Amino acid sequence: MSHFDLTDCSHRRFNPLTGTYVLCSPHRAKRPWLGAKENAGAEKKNTYEPGCYLCPGNKRAVGNAINPKYSTTFIFPNDFSAVKLDQPDYVDEDSEGKSEEEKKLRKRLLITKGVRGKCFVICFSPNHALTMPLLTVNEIVGVINAWLGLYTDLKRQHFEEGKPYKYVQIFENKGAAMGCSNPHPHCQSWCLDTIPTEISRELSNLIKYKAENGTHLFADYIRLEQLEKVRIVLENDSFIVVVPYWALWPFETLLIAKEHLRSLEDFDEKHKEDLASILKKLTVKYDNLFETSFPYSAGLHQAPFFGSEDELDCSWFHAHFYPPLLRSATVKKFCVGFEMLAEPQRDLTSEQAAAKLQQLDSETHYSQRK
Amino acid sequence: MSHFDLTDCSHRRFNPLTGTYVLCSPHRAKRPWLGAKENAGAEKKNTYEPGCYLCPGNKRAVGNAINPKYSTTFIFPNDFSAVKLDQPDYVDEDSEGKSEEEKKLRKRLLITKGVRGKCFVICFSPNHALTMPLLTVNEIVGVINAWLGLYTDLKRQHFEEGKPYKYVQIFENKGAAMGCSNPHPHCQSWCLDTIPTEISRELSNLIKYKAENGTHLFADYIRLEQLEKVRIVLENDSFIVVVPYWALWPFETLLIAKEHLRSLEDFDEKHKEDLASILKKLTVKYDNLFETSFPYSAGLHQAPFFGSEDELDCSWFHAHFYPPLLRSATVKKFCVGFEMLAEPQRDLTSEQAAAKLQQLDSETHYSQRK
Ligand SMILES: O=P(O)(O)O[C@H]1O[C@H](CO)[C@@H](O)[C@H](O)[C@H]1O
Ligand SMILES: O=P(O)(O)O[C@H]1O[C@H](CO)[C@@H](O)[C@H](O)[C@H]1O
Repeated sequence: MSHFDLTDCSHRRFNPLTGTYVLCSPHRAKRPWLGAKENAGAEKKNTYEPGCYLCPGNKRAVGNAINPKYSTTFIFPNDFSAVKLDQPDYVDEDSEGKSEEEKKLRKRLLITKGVRGKCFVICFSPNHALTMPLLTVNEIVGVINAWLGLYTDLKRQHFEEGKPYKYVQIFENKGAAMGCSNPHPHCQSWCLDTIPTEISRELSNLIKYKAENGTHLFADYIRLEQLEKVRIVLENDSFIVVVPYWALWPFETLLIAKEHLRSLEDFDEKHKEDLASILKKLTVKYDNLFETSFPYSAGLHQAPFFGSEDELDCSWFHAHFYPPLLRSATVKKFCVGFEMLAEPQRDLTSEQAAAKLQQLDSETHYSQRK
Repeated sequence: MSHFDLTDCSHRRFNPLTGTYVLCSPHRAKRPWLGAKENAGAEKKNTYEPGCYLCPGNKRAVGNAINPKYSTTFIFPNDFSAVKLDQPDYVDEDSEGKSEEEKKLRKRLLITKGVRGKCFVICFSPNHALTMPLLTVNEIVGVINAWLGLYTDLKRQHFEEGKPYKYVQIFENKGAAMGCSNPHPHCQSWCLDTIPTEISRELSNLIKYKAENGTHLFADYIRLEQLEKVRIVLENDSFIVVVPYWALWPFETLLIAKEHLRSLEDFDEKHKEDLASILKKLTVKYDNLFETSFPYSAGLHQAPFFGSEDELDCSWFHAHFYPPLLRSATVKKFCVGFEMLAEPQRDLTSEQAAAKLQQLDSETHYSQRK
């Protein structure tokens, strides 16, 4: 073999957002599979489920709360929030009475910080069967307005009421394969008094890139993808969706605002419609890929409510989609042994994944074909 | 509430090996679960499976190779290796003929390195049913000798034959939940011409710790755990197993050599026996926890074949066990939305997990109880 063919030779690609490498082994896609298979989950869902604690009018998971008979989106605090508002400041009480040696070692090695915050659940619609690709663009605009409402309200509560809110992570776990604990279409938002690891890592890399190159990484990257075209999945006036060069998950995508919008607060009505439209097209393509309700975890990255000048300046609205399926509705990519212990690894290249996604219909959902 | 109770208040714990935080939400363990359930996999396995491409005498997954009638361990090159030996050096051929602008952007954003290496599969024994906890200590010593043999041989091939080998990652994916594609008990070893991301991150943090404190992080950490006792699961003359303070997976453990052994090459016979014995006890405890063949990904971290003086000096033999189960044989922890997009999150504390593991029998496997 005399030339380096990216679709045949193993190589590492650098992810400039995380500062780490992904091992790419495109020749490996043909290995046999006697391992776990997901349920295809193609069965039709009912529009209402009496036992669902997210459907309108039903009893919630905990206590005696009853959901209202909501007709659009529905937001409520998570009954099992990962963070709480009401807790004291952290003090290392376990050090009390310990030897000087133990105290010194605890200080070096058991580094702990208290975290306050609040978690919410956002149902997309009262309809138990309507996942994102099956909502109308208008209904998705409603979901985006719910996200925006939450963002501005939490930010206001920080500045006006001193609430410990700094960053809100809006995300969706779709499908049992992605640990979704209730199939009623919904997303979550976890608001913390700190910038979480992944966002703070991204921000420092964006800040570093700007310091080194004088431009914003996303501005450069959008320009490059528009020149190369091979990794673009969708594009409209306001947004672009690519399979990033450094993607880890087989059909991972990155949705980026084409202008420098720092958060949903910078959106006008046109941006909202364009985001709704591209989200619908992307999720229709995803479902059409293996003709299944395509599982993923996805989420928005945007500006913290406050932070350093650099952090606020380099924040740039984007969303990550991390879908696990690899070869069919039932065979997913496992990021396990080597991936956990050594380095993330993928089989097909980003360009190969993008080519498959490009070919797919983004208008008609497979379940609605004539 | 007036005092900060680590079993009730949400907090972040710093992982000094990765340099990142884990969000700990101990009050959250009670949330309901309508999500995915794993198969309990309790069915008894046959000692030989005619269709298994790892059993002795059977046909392999690809080509016409037939496995020998092996009687102890069996090592062979992976038929679907993630890395290859035979490929040219990387050159960015796709830049040819492109505009200066595109070339400049490619250089900044599409950072790529070729990777060479070789992957192996190591069957623990000819018996299709014998997972690690069911092997005898002697048989596990045989597995350790196989690892050692591979390590020294690959290192020798690097120095004597110029093979592109720098780091070998030995790991096991156990169980369908961890993406194991063949249930015949085996582990893998992927050898690369580079130090993979996670190991290089660990090494830099170990080097930094030593520069700052004058001691090795593991020496300090073992001392601290021995003083505190609450997180120790097992200990013998040569090794200690703890649920690390910063564990992410519910029942994650860290196995550390008590002396400064850099790799398997530093082991004497006593070290091998002690490692075999503690591996058996740990995996018996794991299986006894939910009375199931407990899934996990696990792997050894040890010295690269060559590297900087600091890298070789700070390498310290240890193993990570990352098991996904949370509450039962069927309900696992999903590291999905928030975890992928923002920050790893766990429910119970490390101390709570360690207390459960401490109580379990490490001698008799649940399937062999009278
Ligand atoms: O090599 P196997 O067992 O076919 O595959 C398994 O382990 C590999 C290394 O962790 C992963 O890349 C695969 O996703 C997983 O299914
Ligand atoms: O909040 P849920 O849907 O109950 O839970 C799901 O999402 C959370 C946030 O990503 C994860 O921590 C859980 O492991 C997952 O099962």
